[in-house]
Amino acid sequence: MAYRSTPLRIDRDHALRERILECALSRVADGGFAALTMQALAEDVGIATGSLYRHFRSKGELAADVFASASQREVDALGAALRGPGDPAQRLAAGVHQFAARAWHSRRLAFALIAEPVDPEVDEQRLLYREAYAELFSELLEEGRKAGVFQLHSPSLIAACLVGAIAEALVGPLSPPARAAREAGYPAPALDDVSQGLVLFCLRAVGVKELV
Amino acid sequence: MAYRSTPLRIDRDHALRERILECALSRVADGGFAALTMQALAEDVGIATGSLYRHFRSKGELAADVFASASQREVDALGAALRGPGDPAQRLAAGVHQFAARAWHSRRLAFALIAEPVDPEVDEQRLLYREAYAELFSELLEEGRKAGVFQLHSPSLIAACLVGAIAEALVGPLSPPARAAREAGYPAPALDDVSQGLVLFCLRAVGVKELV
Repeated sequence: MAYRSTPLRIDRDHALRERILECALSRVADGGFAALTMQALAEDVGIATGSLYRHFRSKGELAADVFASASQREVDALGAALRGPGDPAQRLAAGVHQFAARAWHSRRLAFALIAEPVDPEVDEQRLLYREAYAELFSELLEEGRKAGVFQLHSPSLIAACLVGAIAEALVGPLSPPARAAREAGYPAPALDDVSQGLVLFCLRAVGVKELV
Repeated sequence: MAYRSTPLRIDRDHALRERILECALSRVADGGFAALTMQALAEDVGIATGSLYRHFRSKGELAADVFASASQREVDALGAALRGPGDPAQRLAAGVHQFAARAWHSRRLAFALIAEPVDPEVDEQRLLYREAYAELFSELLEEGRKAGVFQLHSPSLIAACLVGAIAEALVGPLSPPARAAREAGYPAPALDDVSQGLVLFCLRAVGVKELV
């Protein structure tokens, strides 16, 4: 008898896939993509390594799915802040503050998402998600330009600049060497300093005259 | 008799290694890292694929070496511009203009260096070279701050922001989809627009009052 995909079986497959992704995300949050090996993950989930490959063709594909799922949360959170209450400059400041704070509170995961060297499949997703962030900023910049709050010519170019600036400013403080230094008691940048510096940088760069 | 490394042999090895790197760079400049396969490269060089592995343990290692060699040229060129004639604001503008122009004139290579999804060994090098760029900017920002030309608190944070902003602003216009659109006759951003937008962004962000 042929092996059939019954509705019950599809539900179970879906549930197991979600559980695998959850366990994988938890590994990446603790130890970065370097900690995401198929064998360790199979043990976490409590299934055979071979069964993992029924759900994800390769480790690269799995890593890309974990990346996309974690990044979508950040895109949604940023979108909510940039479209929240306040004038465009206040919302830009709030969005950048929040993005930095979220990264700071899940440093290992944030570094993994932004910059950890990893499979090219994840690099592909990084490009796509950076575009998603840039679209959110672009929408706000366009609105602020029309309102006369921002002075800029090309919202899409400046949106890309903001995405790059924010990501790169966080790479250093979130990186494993910075973590090691901090744990060894060396002075380390504080979230408030980084966040305020970033906000000021972004507001100035979009031509806000009266800084919030 | 044991196989010995004579001085002549070391020279020859070195020359061949350099030739391999040159051919590899030429492939990446034409078709990105995607075009850098060991087999095609061995054919270009005129040696057996197996011989390539005597010089580079893996494709990832080779790609990382090509990346480092091409990136070092950019770091050197940027350093020369940022340390060239003019006041700090003029030099910042000149450096950004030049960086964008160099990228524009070798789009495929620039996209490969900045953002093409590729082996994690290249990602590692990207992190290192971004630090090298940031150090150059940091030096200039510190100088400009002391001279009262730039208004900023943390040169190192702002330097990272500039590196991220410049790279990310170029990713879109240099990307393969943008190239395809341009070749199909769709309107595409011009170097001058991107470059001027970037320079204005950077000068404002570092608090230059009278824009050059």
